[in-house]
This record gives sequence, structure tokens and C-alpha cells, in this order.
Amino acid sequence: MSTPLITLTTDFGNGSPYVAQMKAAIFAIHREADIVDITHAVPPQQIRNGAHVLNEVTPRFPPGTIHVAVIDPGVGSQRAIVYAQLGTQRYVCPDNGLLTLLCRRQPPAELRSLTNRSYWATEVSATFHGRDIMAPVAAHLSLGLSPEDLGPPHDALVELDFAEAVALPGKVIGQIESIDSFGNLITNITAAQVAECRELGAAARVACDEHETFGIRRAYSDVPEGTLVALVGSSGWLELAITGGNAAEMLRIGVGAKVTVAW
Amino acid sequence: MSTPLITLTTDFGNGSPYVAQMKAAIFAIHREADIVDITHAVPPQQIRNGAHVLNEVTPRFPPGTIHVAVIDPGVGSQRAIVYAQLGTQRYVCPDNGLLTLLCRRQPPAELRSLTNRSYWATEVSATFHGRDIMAPVAAHLSLGLSPEDLGPPHDALVELDFAEAVALPGKVIGQIESIDSFGNLITNITAAQVAECRELGAAARVACDEHETFGIRRAYSDVPEGTLVALVGSSGWLELAITGGNAAEMLRIGVGAKVTVAW
Amino acid sequence: MSTPLITLTTDFGNGSPYVAQMKAAIFAIHREADIVDITHAVPPQQIRNGAHVLNEVTPRFPPGTIHVAVIDPGVGSQRAIVYAQLGTQRYVCPDNGLLTLLCRRQPPAELRSLTNRSYWATEVSATFHGRDIMAPVAAHLSLGLSPEDLGPPHDALVELDFAEAVALPGKVIGQIESIDSFGNLITNITAAQVAECRELGAAARVACDEHETFGIRRAYSDVPEGTLVALVGSSGWLELAITGGNAAEMLRIGVGAKVTVAW
Repeated sequence: MSTPLITLTTDFGNGSPYVAQMKAAIFAIHREADIVDITHAVPPQQIRNGAHVLNEVTPRFPPGTIHVAVIDPGVGSQRAIVYAQLGTQRYVCPDNGLLTLLCRRQPPAELRSLTNRSYWATEVSATFHGRDIMAPVAAHLSLGLSPEDLGPPHDALVELDFAEAVALPGKVIGQIESIDSFGNLITNITAAQVAECRELGAAARVACDEHETFGIRRAYSDVPEGTLVALVGSSGWLELAITGGNAAEMLRIGVGAKVTVAW
Repeated sequence: MSTPLITLTTDFGNGSPYVAQMKAAIFAIHREADIVDITHAVPPQQIRNGAHVLNEVTPRFPPGTIHVAVIDPGVGSQRAIVYAQLGTQRYVCPDNGLLTLLCRRQPPAELRSLTNRSYWATEVSATFHGRDIMAPVAAHLSLGLSPEDLGPPHDALVELDFAEAVALPGKVIGQIESIDSFGNLITNITAAQVAECRELGAAARVACDEHETFGIRRAYSDVPEGTLVALVGSSGWLELAITGGNAAEMLRIGVGAKVTVAW
Repeated sequence: MSTPLITLTTDFGNGSPYVAQMKAAIFAIHREADIVDITHAVPPQQIRNGAHVLNEVTPRFPPGTIHVAVIDPGVGSQRAIVYAQLGTQRYVCPDNGLLTLLCRRQPPAELRSLTNRSYWATEVSATFHGRDIMAPVAAHLSLGLSPEDLGPPHDALVELDFAEAVALPGKVIGQIESIDSFGNLITNITAAQVAECRELGAAARVACDEHETFGIRRAYSDVPEGTLVALVGSSGWLELAITGGNAAEMLRIGVGAKVTVAW
């Protein structure tokens, strides 16, 4: 019988030995733990980026998976560390907004503040709670510890402000929300918001800066290489891409740029 | 009794959350799967580079290992996705040339086109078949699914043109085929092609651009630090390196540069 | 009953397929091996950096863990490859100074020179002993092989010179020893060396180049964003950081810079 998976999401950087310190802390408590890296390439201290990653990736894991997220610029301050059950997944992270987008899907079924030092490292540094608090707590949870033992109920999570795209008649106004490793520009416009104009075909125009596409396509390969294309990406957001190229670099468009769909 | 390993090779970039989405898709079907990353640093859409990686690395794995390779610029187009048995190893990837070099070792013992949607995700995006088709299929294979159930036999694989070095009397003409993380310049000249001149010792001259070495050595440490050295590398190809340095950067030599061995 | 973990520390670079070749070599011998990456981002051939990583990370692993470290500029030369038991941990690496800092904690309980080819790959390249010697040896050790079978006792390890900080009355003089992925400047000054002035509070001055802090703080968040802060980091060394920023880049300070604490 297998124990729950533990995943790690941090801003420590690819190849950071700090990640291995967290893994060692987990294995020291639960030698048979199954640890999966989600990413360690969240830009330093970019909680918003971490919130996107958690939202896109974690709900896909088997029920009961324990997700540890350490983007924690407030380490050592009064910010709380929390345990949250959201849908079928469980989270251990600082209470700094990392769970904002996930909480829009459903309210937490359980929310606890980590205060019981019994499940922490013997010595807790002031600068690395990922290793000294969150990793040990996740290891104990994976062994079957009840969340009740972690600390008292936590009232409410810190929420960050994430702009939602605005739908008007025949028009949606949103923005570039993130950029992936291919340079594809992911917007905050949902598939549902452009469902109507997708059925209209090429009549839709997607505009960003001085660039514009005609129509929303199905796949990158629907247009010739080097062409700007708009499509609904694999996570359900409208995105702008250049087939066979890097749209972010070639168009010099960054996060926050305004995107308009009109039909 | 353990199940076959599943390996992942992609061009998603180090730290890409897309990799974790593929892992989640596998674990959702086969919670006990053993997943090994080969690399996610294949340059975007560089099928040729992916073919090299698969050729150098995958045959070393235990028999029956399932290798998933997602360098897939044609995702969403009519390109097929295939299952191939090559030697003792098994592959799931788009049919775009990724298996070209491996097929030169031996013809596929089994080749299937993935058409049976029973083993795919319920909803298949048009832009991420690695997550929605290849990962689920690999998970089912690792649980013992017969390849016959994936779809009908596939006639022939797409082949890319990889230049082979030309052996002439007392001379071999080849090119730089790839560059590793140390900046070592790996050629397409085989150990066998330079066997004769290796026995002759320092009489051999290996030339690339205006640079030339005298002799083919055994190890980097056979020459003083900072010196250009030619040797047969760990995968059996002749390579040019600068001991203690980065040859690609220092000599400004890239993939495709002509290399001549004469003796 | 689980077998010992095997960890990997190399300078192959993030995403290097050479790492996967080592894993394949281990799995080919021990299909059930549990492999953990410590880091592959040690700068090429920087043994000193590797020694720091091993010292900070490996003692945290469960007893009996087998740590394979391949920062090996001397591969193919006469340098030995060794097995060492240090405290509760076991190491397989070239004898080039990688274990220097760990040996300062305690002398090796067992030290062997790897000479018995029975546990190596059938064909051993001259350029990749990580794959052809160290990985297979680690796999055999994880299956229970006795270190005695690896080769004869090894007399003494190569030691590198690591400067220790100097404590004077009311003053400690040290240097920047490494830089982490956040740009934090880690010194070679220990918590014990600054214990006295930490109790004195803001009276302590930590100086590096023309920059100076007043006091040694507990956490990054103890000072306003953008402020230089000195604190004892999570591994017990005094460090200089800029809260919410990258101190190494912003101050243009590198490894070797002199650091003075005075009170």
C-alpha cells in the first residue's frame, strides 16, 4: 500500500542544493517517501507565478497528494504557515497568497495554522522554514498524521489580486498573465470567454500591442512557421504564440500587456 | 515485482511545469510508476538533438523500459504518434524522426500507430499530446497493457537525414554534431573510423576551422590544462575539447563545422 | 525492507543527458534503486564548490545513504577513486579534495581505493568514470556489497585548502565563500564566531567592500525590502543578503571578497 505523493514547488532555482536539503529532511522522517518535483524555477520571491504553477499543475495529481510550496519571502516574519485541503489535494505552504487561484475553484475544506512544533525539525532556522517546518510536516502527513495535530484552525488565507478578463458584447479584454518556456504568451482569457468567437472562425481578431491575428486556431501547426497564432492552450487559457518561434522574444511582449479579442 | 521504468525526454526546458503535468498524468493512472527524467533541455523543437539524446542514453536502460519523448513541433497536425519496440527498449513519441538514429542500430521489432482513444486522457488538447496521449499510454503500458491494444501496425517511421562521416584512405571527413554541457565538441566520426590512426599515435592531425591537434589522446588529462585535445568520448564518438575549459565558447565553433582527421 | 538511497552530485549541468546515463547504469544493476539528485549545477570542474555542497547537504540524509560525487577534472589520470565512510554517510568519488570539508567534521571510519574491476562496467571509458565505475559501484553497494570488496584500504585523502575565518578580540575576519541562487553571499564565518556580538545587538558592524550593516539580524524580513542584512543562514554560516533582492548582482561582490565583523 503506497503512501501519498509529496510534491515540491519552490523558487530555489534549477539545481539548488536547498531542494536536496528539503528532500533529505523528508527522507530522514519517511525513508519510503515518493517525492516529485513540480518546479524549482519560480522566479525568486514571485508568489504570483507560484500561484499560477500550483493552479495549473497540482489538481492533476492523485487524490491525497501533499503539495509543499516554498516561495517564502516573508520567512522568519509573522506570516503563518498553513495546511489546506483544497478539493482532492493537500497543501503545506506559507500563507502569502500562493493558494489564491486554487481557492477560486473551491473554498478550503480544511485549513490549519502550523504551530505544533512536535512535527518540526529539532532546530528551526529563521531563514529556511521549507526545510525545517514544511518538509518535516509533509513527511509526517505522508505517514498518516492527522492534520488536526498540526495546529488550530486557520481563519482565512491571504488573497492576492489576480485580474480577470472582462467580457463585453463581441469583445473580451484581458492581459498576458504568464510566459512559458517556449515563449508562448498565456493570457487570463478563458476558453469559455472566447467560445462564441471560436465558432465564428476567422472573423475574430486577437490584438496585443500592434500585433493582431485573424481567427483563433486549434493548434500551432494550423499556421505556417513564423506566424503569430492565437489558440486556447493546454490549460484552458487563450494564448498567443509564434509557430516554431519564441513569441515573447520576437514581439518583445511581457506579462501585463493588454490583450483584446473582438468579433 | 517492479513494473517497467518510464523515462521522459522533452524540449520543455529545465524546471518547466509542463513536465510535472506529464508526471501527474502518469501517476493518476499508475500511482506506483517509476519515472526517470532523461532531459528536458533539448532546445525547443530540435528533433535532431532529441534523436541524439535518445540514441546515446536510452539503450543503456533495463530491458522493457518505456521511453516517452516529446519534441513535437507538429502537435495537433496530422503527424502520427507511435509506439516502437527497438532492441530491448520501448518508445512512445511523435513520428517525426526522433527514432532515426536508434533505427540505424536495428529495425523496429514492433511499430504501432496510436489511435485507440481508450488509453488517452478523456479530454485531449490540441497542443499538449505529451500530457494527454503519450503520458497516459506510457502509464497503461507500464501496467502491462499490450501494445496491440494501442492501435494498428504503423508502416514506416519518418527518417531524418543525419550525415555520416566519410572515410577515405588516410583521412576521415566529418562534422561537429553536438555540443555537451562542458562545451566539448562531439563529432559524427566513430571510434572505428579513427582506429587506424589512433594506433599511429601523434602522427594523426585532427583539424576544425583553423585549429588542429596532433594525435588522438585517451583522456582530457593527457594534455596540459587549456590545451585542445582530440579523443574518443564516452559514447564512442571522436570529440574535440579544451582540457579544463569550454572549447565551444573559446574556439567559437558550433554544430555543423567541418572536422578532418588525416594521418 | 528498503535499500540505501543513492544520491548524485555532479558538474554536468542542469538537464545533462550524462546524468541519465549514470542513472541507467545504476538501474541496470539495481532496478529498484532509489536515486536522489543533489545537484548537477556545480560549476564545471569546481571541486571546491562541490566540497561545499557535499558538506552542507549530505549529512542530512538517512544513515547509510550512498553519495556519488562526480566533479572529476582528472578523469583518466592517475587520481584514485575512493569509497569513504564519514559519520553515518557513505561516499564514492574521485580522490581530489571533494571530501575535505566533510573530513573536518570527523576522520573517515573506512577508506578504500576502488581497484576491483568486478563491480565496474564491462567496458570502461577513459572520460566518464562516473558512469563506468562510480555508478555501478554505488549500485552494488546499495544491494549490500561490502566495501572491502571494492579494493584495498586507501591511505589518506587529498585535501584542499579552505581558509577558516580568524577570530580576534572583538573582531572576526573571513571571506565570501559561496553564493546561492538568491544571490545571498555566504561567508566562512561561523555562528559560534559571532555569538558574542549577536548578543550585543546592533553594535556589531559587518563590512564587505564599502558596504556595511549595523547588527546581525535573525531573518531577511527583519529589515525593509532592498536593505542589506547580515544574518546567520540556514547552514550555520554568517551571510550577507539584500532582502527581496540579489546581493551578489546588486553589490557586485564575488567569492573571495573579505568580510569583517567588528563589535
